[in-house]
Amino acid sequence: MRLALIGVGLIGGSFAAALRAAGAVSQVAGFDADAHAIRAALSRGIIDRAATSAADAAGDADLVVVATPVGAMRAAFSEIAGALITSAVVTDVGSTKCSVIDDARAAFGAAFPRFVPAHPIAGGERPGVEHAAANLFRKRLVITTPLPATDPSAAALVEELWRNVGARLERLSPEQHDKVFAAVSHLPHLLAFALVEMIARSPDAETCFSHAGAGFRDFTRIAASSPDMWRDVCLANRGPLSEELRAYRARLDILQSAIDAGNGETLHAVFAAAAAAKRGRSSAA
Amino acid sequence: MRLALIGVGLIGGSFAAALRAAGAVSQVAGFDADAHAIRAALSRGIIDRAATSAADAAGDADLVVVATPVGAMRAAFSEIAGALITSAVVTDVGSTKCSVIDDARAAFGAAFPRFVPAHPIAGGERPGVEHAAANLFRKRLVITTPLPATDPSAAALVEELWRNVGARLERLSPEQHDKVFAAVSHLPHLLAFALVEMIARSPDAETCFSHAGAGFRDFTRIAASSPDMWRDVCLANRGPLSEELRAYRARLDILQSAIDAGNGETLHAVFAAAAAAKRGRSSAA
Repeated sequence: MRLALIGVGLIGGSFAAALRAAGAVSQVAGFDADAHAIRAALSRGIIDRAATSAADAAGDADLVVVATPVGAMRAAFSEIAGALITSAVVTDVGSTKCSVIDDARAAFGAAFPRFVPAHPIAGGERPGVEHAAANLFRKRLVITTPLPATDPSAAALVEELWRNVGARLERLSPEQHDKVFAAVSHLPHLLAFALVEMIARSPDAETCFSHAGAGFRDFTRIAASSPDMWRDVCLANRGPLSEELRAYRARLDILQSAIDAGNGETLHAVFAAAAAAKRGRSSAA
Repeated sequence: MRLALIGVGLIGGSFAAALRAAGAVSQVAGFDADAHAIRAALSRGIIDRAATSAADAAGDADLVVVATPVGAMRAAFSEIAGALITSAVVTDVGSTKCSVIDDARAAFGAAFPRFVPAHPIAGGERPGVEHAAANLFRKRLVITTPLPATDPSAAALVEELWRNVGARLERLSPEQHDKVFAAVSHLPHLLAFALVEMIARSPDAETCFSHAGAGFRDFTRIAASSPDMWRDVCLANRGPLSEELRAYRARLDILQSAIDAGNGETLHAVFAAAAAAKRGRSSAA
């Protein structure tokens, strides 16, 4: 199978490396606007050929994996749409699904049924193809969100490839995916970025960073993720994220009032509900 | 040396176990209002004697370690003040320092110079003496905040004991300690509790917790900390914490507007500043 990889970063590079290690692909053409990423991918043997454009990469591919930040997917889909062979299957690795599906529908027209929306839950704080690893997806979850229009054989092929590289598969509707990930991924990243940025700007920044052990370190780790990727995610999923952030800010308003009033009961009720929620589900986490 | 431990939980129990393992204490009397904790500490050999009150525990002690939640320290100090032998040194392990110092000054009067305020940065998400471990403080930071009034030999004794159990020592002023930890510890805990509680109350709670991998898991871990302890910390350090929370909410207001307006530049600027702050300091973290 010939693979085209559009967007050569941590996730796309790891998927290509994993598919090669599993013997699922014979040849990989890659395209990325960043020449540095292409050179790194070539020298690590993750791609065999540096394509001159997304269309050039996709031209003879059986499978096209679009692994750009989600904000660049509409352009990538449009570029490759005219170049695909009839049997080609296209998939993505984006952290949002409704926006990506809209982009794919607009670009692919009659070929849209052969697009399989997917989201591997992996990677994170060390972006870039230089950190790509063939084992990145072992035991990790990959969510697919096929639509009624999606060709079942295309969905089955993509899901089988993810299984071949060690992933667990789950299907959600695109809307459910985007709502859940706004809450458990996009909002936590936003909150972490906001806290680390605030502290970095403060006069005590150096002292604060040198005492990061007590809770803040988890935030700094989350906030080391790619700014480009997360800007795109926040914009692509802005409806659900805006709603989650608004609800969260209302919770903080209550906590601010409780602190200012010395109201320990409200604080305790919130903390105890949170601690109990985690304990009740520790086996599932 | 005879040790009295007032408040038998993760931190106090670990310190007592570590001091015994280091050969620094010969006998440990413990008091805790929770009979369950006392039984666990006795059966694990962390304390030798279950005292009937804080004063009973402190009566013949050379060193008294007060390791209750910070909200209970004023009462504990008052109870032991009349029972201390003249040479006794008292210390604490509280996460806030100004409030604890105020409480100690009020309770100890002329004996206040022999109180040494301390804060070991360790422990966290698994509270209770059943998780106490003699190696909990190895290579961990312990901050002391002695005052001009503090007896230098008392401070030296407490700091030497912490060094004996493997900790690194640092001195800060109480005000600086409370401001820094409001930012790097108390606020992150508050934010994590608030997010986990909000998601636990949502109709999608089960789906959200089963997809915690992508950022939310760090929040659930932080939010599994003791609600009693953290209510007390938030109230004891409410001045600095209120200020940090207010500043943070103002940052979130800006991010909400940016998301609602589709303003990618503002989002990117915040995210990039956060990611750069972490990268620039990764060796120090």
